[in-house]
Amino acid sequence: MRIIQLLIEYDGTDFSGLQSQPGQRTVQGTIEDTLSRVLGHKVVVAGASRTDAGVHALGQVAHFRTTSGMTCFRLQGALDGLLPPDVAVRSVKEVAATIDPQRLVKRKTYRYLIWNDRIRSPLLRERAWHVWNPLDLRAMRRAARCLVGRHDFSAFRATRSETKTSIRRMDRIVIGWEASGLPGRKCLALTFTAGGFLKHMIRNVVGTLVEIGEGRRLPEDMEKILRSRDRRQAGRAAPAHGLCLVSGRL
Amino acid sequence: MRIIQLLIEYDGTDFSGLQSQPGQRTVQGTIEDTLSRVLGHKVVVAGASRTDAGVHALGQVAHFRTTSGMTCFRLQGALDGLLPPDVAVRSVKEVAATIDPQRLVKRKTYRYLIWNDRIRSPLLRERAWHVWNPLDLRAMRRAARCLVGRHDFSAFRATRSETKTSIRRMDRIVIGWEASGLPGRKCLALTFTAGGFLKHMIRNVVGTLVEIGEGRRLPEDMEKILRSRDRRQAGRAAPAHGLCLVSGRL
Repeated sequence: MRIIQLLIEYDGTDFSGLQSQPGQRTVQGTIEDTLSRVLGHKVVVAGASRTDAGVHALGQVAHFRTTSGMTCFRLQGALDGLLPPDVAVRSVKEVAATIDPQRLVKRKTYRYLIWNDRIRSPLLRERAWHVWNPLDLRAMRRAARCLVGRHDFSAFRATRSETKTSIRRMDRIVIGWEASGLPGRKCLALTFTAGGFLKHMIRNVVGTLVEIGEGRRLPEDMEKILRSRDRRQAGRAAPAHGLCLVSGRL
Repeated sequence: MRIIQLLIEYDGTDFSGLQSQPGQRTVQGTIEDTLSRVLGHKVVVAGASRTDAGVHALGQVAHFRTTSGMTCFRLQGALDGLLPPDVAVRSVKEVAATIDPQRLVKRKTYRYLIWNDRIRSPLLRERAWHVWNPLDLRAMRRAARCLVGRHDFSAFRATRSETKTSIRRMDRIVIGWEASGLPGRKCLALTFTAGGFLKHMIRNVVGTLVEIGEGRRLPEDMEKILRSRDRRQAGRAAPAHGLCLVSGRL
């Protein structure tokens, strides 16, 4: 039995998220169907970083088991030809059968993009959240500081999340202007790095940071919200389409 | 009678180009319909830079005439609310009724984006042409040099183009790596500035430059192709989705 590791990029717009769900078009389901066709046996793919419906990924790490002897090179060629345009496997490699794939990804980086302008941008509409009020970056950075480190993030977890612990260690938050890919246009990028995140955690944190950036809350409120461990204290979730899983670093 | 000037951004993916065509969804048709609804009279919009089906625009300049006294500010608000997500009017202003709108745009800049990598990129698929062979930038730059200046561009015009003269003055061609908007990823950008372009001219030039970059033609061939004034000598047209009208500068 071999364990094969995939690095997957996808445009989340037309997917109901990563994980297989009956009757829904998901990234996992799409890749499993294609792999099963290529390898001739049922394949179960496990993604390392969960992404919700509409969230994009530049470097999702995933694993599957196979008895096939097909080379990684040929497997990649087959996947490139058979997968739909909005998902691609950027690398295929075999890993030692002794490792636990679920524990391989040690550090995850997500980036949230905001198009902060009076007027909406059609060319950025599927990649960045349009926030029209001017944002105070210093206030946002000040507010974000208290989130770095080991904390109970209950105030920012999804209402119906069932994870055992809500304690996570946030390694880094970087907030700054970045090239949007369109000449002369910058987006506000919020980059989060941690060993793991709770469901909806980044979108809830971004929603709260934007309320602070707009001046509707004070930077000091962030620490109060965090300490309250009460989801109702935080701001509303930022929309999914601004979020991208950049990498699950090994 | 007032002349109103619009600055328009659009994602060309789902449009059959700029110009109104019966039974087709076009940028001009969409804006004319919306303006007619807002102003209560039939409106004809004239765009300054023609874009083909699938080509994007960041700064298309357009004009229309109206007898309405509605302020530009209110007009912009109405357009922002009523236009579909893939097109937006980024500015609205009144210009002197004595000017000829068709002659207002003095200089046009188009950018063509190439994702030059072995593996396709789902997140860039609607904005950049995927070229998998490695490209020799020095060869491409050398080849592009002979196109700058005043020339007969017949070799690069659309086969069924009816413009009187095929002489154009190319002011500038810049070829280099630019931020794609995705962290750690660069695209090859080819930026062209001129007073005007022939139909399909940029896409035909880019197609030929890519053949040179791939080593399938020599840089010296470009001058021979230009001088031949024969469309059959040039390479095939690059696809529309990599092209974006950056600005029609006034």
